[in-house]
Amino acid sequence: MPEDTGNHDLAPGVLTEYLDEDSGIFVRSAHQFERFRSPYQSVEVHDTRPFGKLFRLDGHFMTSEKDEFFYHENLVHVAAMAHPAPESALIVGGGDGGSAEELLKYPTMKSVTLVEIDLAVIDIARKYFADIHRGALSDPRLKLSVEDGLGFVRATNESFDLIVLDLTDPGGPSEPLYGSDFYRACAARLNPSGAMTLHVASPIAHPERIRKGIANLRAAFAVVVPYLTSIPLYGGLWMMACASSTLNPSYLTSLEADRRIATRRIRDLQYYNGDVHRASFALPNFVRELVA
Amino acid sequence: MPEDTGNHDLAPGVLTEYLDEDSGIFVRSAHQFERFRSPYQSVEVHDTRPFGKLFRLDGHFMTSEKDEFFYHENLVHVAAMAHPAPESALIVGGGDGGSAEELLKYPTMKSVTLVEIDLAVIDIARKYFADIHRGALSDPRLKLSVEDGLGFVRATNESFDLIVLDLTDPGGPSEPLYGSDFYRACAARLNPSGAMTLHVASPIAHPERIRKGIANLRAAFAVVVPYLTSIPLYGGLWMMACASSTLNPSYLTSLEADRRIATRRIRDLQYYNGDVHRASFALPNFVRELVA
Repeated sequence: MPEDTGNHDLAPGVLTEYLDEDSGIFVRSAHQFERFRSPYQSVEVHDTRPFGKLFRLDGHFMTSEKDEFFYHENLVHVAAMAHPAPESALIVGGGDGGSAEELLKYPTMKSVTLVEIDLAVIDIARKYFADIHRGALSDPRLKLSVEDGLGFVRATNESFDLIVLDLTDPGGPSEPLYGSDFYRACAARLNPSGAMTLHVASPIAHPERIRKGIANLRAAFAVVVPYLTSIPLYGGLWMMACASSTLNPSYLTSLEADRRIATRRIRDLQYYNGDVHRASFALPNFVRELVA
Repeated sequence: MPEDTGNHDLAPGVLTEYLDEDSGIFVRSAHQFERFRSPYQSVEVHDTRPFGKLFRLDGHFMTSEKDEFFYHENLVHVAAMAHPAPESALIVGGGDGGSAEELLKYPTMKSVTLVEIDLAVIDIARKYFADIHRGALSDPRLKLSVEDGLGFVRATNESFDLIVLDLTDPGGPSEPLYGSDFYRACAARLNPSGAMTLHVASPIAHPERIRKGIANLRAAFAVVVPYLTSIPLYGGLWMMACASSTLNPSYLTSLEADRRIATRRIRDLQYYNGDVHRASFALPNFVRELVA
């Protein structure tokens, strides 16, 4: 398990996220609310002007009040809007509740199971990030399970319409959740028209993680659709992917996505709309080469 | 004129670009090739691992070997591909030659006029950034003019199919080139089916610059089409715009853009393709509100 990397900050109070050894992004901390080690990782909460409250695990930026919608909306809605009527979802990780909140916007959604290995993450979310989970962590449709995601997926008999991998980057406790074995276990827990969605890496800073991640997904799923979004807190352009045996979200037209947003009464979207849905699948030439 | 802001770097050798007062991006300098003041601005060239050679003016990141294509391809081709047959272009700024290189890829292009106020920028490009201009600065179709862009546009009788504003951010010597007076002067120098293209600002860090920039453009042009791209060296999501009295690049389909790339034999595109062309115009909800 990596040590607390907070001391790699460029200067005291300058929270630093490296994209590679020599570049990255930084945010000044105006106040440190929390800094402790859970049984799994170092946990920090800071107040910042550009991002509001900001959450770090093992020194890495996880989410923030002001930019969480870039990540959570794009992680969830591309697959969920393409699904004809999602009723059940599994989130692996995502203890901040942001993905749960997006999934619970769907009127057809009956049950969201959130499997988070670290209770400290959920406690921190309840205490500091009400603007991210917005009550999702107390929603009666949410089943919280504090355990290892790999163990849960292998042991469960349940199946799901959507699986959302809302994980820390590989290298920490989530490392086993980036392999094709785990992806196959997830594929086995999806309903026939179901889909898994996950973030992959930066196509600029992490080309090898993209190649390997997409290859691992293709070893487990018949349909793997990479897509792009922009996440300020992660340093810009970021690849996500939707994986399924049947569902291809790139077949959903802009018009139909907008129609579904309306008929499903999905509210409070700061990023996602029908145009954005379609645009997500447009890959620049250098990204096409990475996923070819 | 602002002083050299290089000393605002977070630490010695940590080149820092602020998006706002409290956040931004950084790149470690492996070697400083140049650092001097021209008559207009401070000029620096560094070697960096993530970006290759990197160019700063007044302490701000301008361009780099490895990510210049994000900026120059998206700045030029969205408008140029939509134009039926561009024969003449004016670049205001752009002394690095990157925009000229993209414009000179068009087989119909007969003349590109590059008006750069600072000879030092052109000298630096010739000395260090051959991989950006790739010979464009010596192309017989290029007319170099070292003078003030505002004065040039007001004085010239020429008209152009494309005008590219390839400027430093407002605040430095380019400040007068962000107002509606200058935009009207540009509009008067465009041929009837011509278009002007420019970068605007970060929709995340600079919402007011977006609002004001789009309003200034709308005061001068009948058709103003904002679009988005991702520029690593500027910190991620970035707004550009195409302004014209008649040409709307969002009407160009993905298929037709790809057909034109092929028939015009546009080579060496690392980013731009037909899908990317269409996707550029998809604005997230929070950006739609900014430009409404």
